[in-house]
Amino acid sequence: MIDFHIPPLDHSLEKALQQKIDLKTKPIGALGDLENLALHIGLVQQSLSPSLKHPHILVFAGDHGIAKENLVNPYPQEVTYQMVMNFLEGGAAINIFAKQHHLALKVIDAGVNYDFTDQPNLIHAKIAKGTANYLHGPAMTEEQCLGALQKGAELVDQVYQEGCNVIGFGEMGISNTSSAALIMHTICGLPLQECVGKGTGTNDNQQKIKLQTLSKAIRLHNQIDKKNPVQILSTFGGFEIAQLCGAMLKAAERKMVILVDGFITTAAVLVAKTIDANLLSYCIFTHCSHEKGHAAMLEYFKAKPLLRLGMRLGEGSGAALAYPLVASACGFLNEMASFDSAGVSKESR
Amino acid sequence: MIDFHIPPLDHSLEKALQQKIDLKTKPIGALGDLENLALHIGLVQQSLSPSLKHPHILVFAGDHGIAKENLVNPYPQEVTYQMVMNFLEGGAAINIFAKQHHLALKVIDAGVNYDFTDQPNLIHAKIAKGTANYLHGPAMTEEQCLGALQKGAELVDQVYQEGCNVIGFGEMGISNTSSAALIMHTICGLPLQECVGKGTGTNDNQQKIKLQTLSKAIRLHNQIDKKNPVQILSTFGGFEIAQLCGAMLKAAERKMVILVDGFITTAAVLVAKTIDANLLSYCIFTHCSHEKGHAAMLEYFKAKPLLRLGMRLGEGSGAALAYPLVASACGFLNEMASFDSAGVSKESR
Repeated sequence: MIDFHIPPLDHSLEKALQQKIDLKTKPIGALGDLENLALHIGLVQQSLSPSLKHPHILVFAGDHGIAKENLVNPYPQEVTYQMVMNFLEGGAAINIFAKQHHLALKVIDAGVNYDFTDQPNLIHAKIAKGTANYLHGPAMTEEQCLGALQKGAELVDQVYQEGCNVIGFGEMGISNTSSAALIMHTICGLPLQECVGKGTGTNDNQQKIKLQTLSKAIRLHNQIDKKNPVQILSTFGGFEIAQLCGAMLKAAERKMVILVDGFITTAAVLVAKTIDANLLSYCIFTHCSHEKGHAAMLEYFKAKPLLRLGMRLGEGSGAALAYPLVASACGFLNEMASFDSAGVSKESR
Repeated sequence: MIDFHIPPLDHSLEKALQQKIDLKTKPIGALGDLENLALHIGLVQQSLSPSLKHPHILVFAGDHGIAKENLVNPYPQEVTYQMVMNFLEGGAAINIFAKQHHLALKVIDAGVNYDFTDQPNLIHAKIAKGTANYLHGPAMTEEQCLGALQKGAELVDQVYQEGCNVIGFGEMGISNTSSAALIMHTICGLPLQECVGKGTGTNDNQQKIKLQTLSKAIRLHNQIDKKNPVQILSTFGGFEIAQLCGAMLKAAERKMVILVDGFITTAAVLVAKTIDANLLSYCIFTHCSHEKGHAAMLEYFKAKPLLRLGMRLGEGSGAALAYPLVASACGFLNEMASFDSAGVSKESR
């Protein structure tokens, strides 16, 4: 049932793209990371004149069984649905940033513990009203996990059919830094304390309890098959994380540009790349979160994020803030004059 | 004749601004550096609802006597005027980025070795057709220097009268990384080799010659009064750097938000702050250039730049690319819902 066919990145235009970049009226390499970005997007789109069409931010929301015990989260579980309402009413950070950059924002109820009415920009994709508590068993069944992967993929296909070729992925879910930390520990093999951070803002004592609680979860599930992405997702997952995985894998299959947000979204990439490692070629890591484990995750991918603003909000906020840089990369590649066209002398070496 | 009266930053709204930031629907501090930025701009504008009006990029261009010897620059001096033409025709990187973010772009001929015809967006402010060569004497007379400071100030006052309250400052001038390095060495007291970088792209041998040449200039002017900004500017000058100084000082006097670009613009801040240290309170350091000395300059100011993209282009390109982040800071402060207005539960500590 996991059936993705991500093409390896086609490098055939690399030389031509690099030449186009180097002939622009600037010293070789002077636009730094923007030049790498332009090259990357050109390869993803297999075009010397890449363009960003109908950019979207998809925010996947889900609740977590663990949240009800208030062991890992300073905010109550209800904040997940309240923030979804806030997204729908336009009052959250992601609304402001998406509007600023003309990004279409869609919010997906992947599994929030609340009955939403029909609303514009809300997509009903609820797997269940929150996951089970991984302190007592797996967070979801294998069937739920596969259903979530499938659903995420379908949603991206819809957006793709509407003409979108670039998506920023974000999430909302009280306790989901805990899921992400457990996934990170399992896949990256780093000590749990290097994966567990403050989340939405635990104090020192709360963080100690968070770490103890997650250590217990790891001990309970010590038989987990670290090579089995569906088992990892099912055990520690988050419906929003599972749908994110399916969504990003489908986006890569469709050769879309994927803007990865922060700690939780990157944890979804960790799982998804064990399903198909070609995914990574389509990902742009937009920022380094202040959440403890994120820098190490990025290092694991050898990724250099576009922004380092000490943010730790999720919602796709980092992806939205980095979007103009992605647009600038395409912009200079498409619109700048070349030395010849502008009549500018080249270096005299 | 240097007559600036920059008011110290008024901190009276600090508590109210911080409270407004903290009541937004996000964990405390979750927007990281954007929160500091919002606070900073609120203080500069003395407003709980700061706004960015008629944003401009001013690019000051000037030629350098030293460039004619081709000892410090791989590109010939003609590239200065050719790039100014490129700016006026819309083909340079700064044109693309300014257009993307709706920033009015004005190019100032501070002292280019070329006779420009009248053109829209070109401001004639030529002090002379390039500076003198500092290997043989000071780059400019004291009168020229004071005239350049005055002219830069006047230009900003015009833009201010038109309703602008935020300006990104950039420059163009073949050999001006050398001026900037000499200024940096003189003011920061760092060894010259830590101040001299590759500029537009010298190779290893060219860089060696550049360093030897600039060492010679330092030895020639070893009587320089390191506390005298006009003497420093006159000696190692750059008409574009002197006009930048005057422009930024006036912008601060008018309580405008100043977006500082890269190595050369920051060198102008180094000089300008010795004229009036209050300037710094109005400056946002937009990016860290790949040019060798820039990171150390930023450290000297204890400044954390918004972007680190490995760029080294000048033209105000970093300021333009960072502008949307500055707008996002104002955006979240003005437009996000508060916990109360959105009905979101606060943390349960």
